[in-house]
Amino acid sequence: MMILRSSPASPFGRKVRIAAALLGLADRVSMVPADSSKADDPLRKDNPLGKIPVLVTEEGKPIYDSRVILEYLDSFAGGGKIFPTDARRIEVLTLQALADGILDASILRVYEVRMREETKRDPSWVAYQADKVARALGKLEADPPALSDGIPDAGRITLACALGYQDLRFEGKWRNDHPKLVAWLDAFARAVPSFEETRFKG
Amino acid sequence: MMILRSSPASPFGRKVRIAAALLGLADRVSMVPADSSKADDPLRKDNPLGKIPVLVTEEGKPIYDSRVILEYLDSFAGGGKIFPTDARRIEVLTLQALADGILDASILRVYEVRMREETKRDPSWVAYQADKVARALGKLEADPPALSDGIPDAGRITLACALGYQDLRFEGKWRNDHPKLVAWLDAFARAVPSFEETRFKG
Repeated sequence: MMILRSSPASPFGRKVRIAAALLGLADRVSMVPADSSKADDPLRKDNPLGKIPVLVTEEGKPIYDSRVILEYLDSFAGGGKIFPTDARRIEVLTLQALADGILDASILRVYEVRMREETKRDPSWVAYQADKVARALGKLEADPPALSDGIPDAGRITLACALGYQDLRFEGKWRNDHPKLVAWLDAFARAVPSFEETRFKG
Repeated sequence: MMILRSSPASPFGRKVRIAAALLGLADRVSMVPADSSKADDPLRKDNPLGKIPVLVTEEGKPIYDSRVILEYLDSFAGGGKIFPTDARRIEVLTLQALADGILDASILRVYEVRMREETKRDPSWVAYQADKVARALGKLEADPPALSDGIPDAGRITLACALGYQDLRFEGKWRNDHPKLVAWLDAFARAVPSFEETRFKG
């Protein structure tokens, strides 16, 4: 059994759980709750950065971050399923990087509140991160990635998690002015049951 | 000609420049200075996140982030050169993720000073990021990755850039208590002339 050290609300953990489900590996991966703020959490032994998620393979090897875990699971499932091996590969990887970047900027906004006293918060830093997200969503709204039949790739899985995180942490305000992306996420959710199954309901 | 939008001090840009040199592609990549703080920099058109580096291919397609650019260049050069295609691949990708994580945490420390007024800086946030770097360097010091003959892989290139960034921004203090990593970086620099050639001397 592989062990996934993650937390139910982590969007990067969600990427891995959706990928595992899509690849038919859900029964091979057991999620163990991890707390990145706790010094004695085994997470830090497996990943000194103390970041969620980490996958511990059946051979006991820790693998991170989420991009690397997705590659590992894809290869475990035979390869070429959520990462194209042809010319489309780089396009998918760039989409994944864009969606990961939306998540990174969004998480910095959340941390600004969670990890700092009120007097140390900086509205201009928050705006700087929010602008990154707004520009990225604007670009995606102008031309959402096509959803074809078959297993969605790593870029599309990550985009779905990035939009889901906007719903979780920013009251879904993105929905007001991104109708094409809303329709895109609806279509993704219809095609991928594990998207709803992994939604954090805390 | 490929265009690399980057800045001379960017450690992620340095990854790309070293990779291009190692892959024999230095003459195919032209670096164009980018300023991630400027709204009208073409960087933001190519990457809405406004992050450095971006590679624009000869077909005019923007690719990011540095990991994806390294994969693209590797594939451009024939493939399997800085990313192993065998079982070692996941180990190399995890090392790259660890070194990228050292960089991310280090850059957040730098931004704390560069992007915030003094009253908005938070020593506990800075310590939280510094601890990530300290734990990661501690783990690497205990067992530095072997440097074999042949082209260093993406993990090792990234580690060298992460250590170089500690020299650039934190006065090389890491050198005092990481003798094995100091020796490792010396050996890397001897084997890879582009490491010194891309050192920021600003």
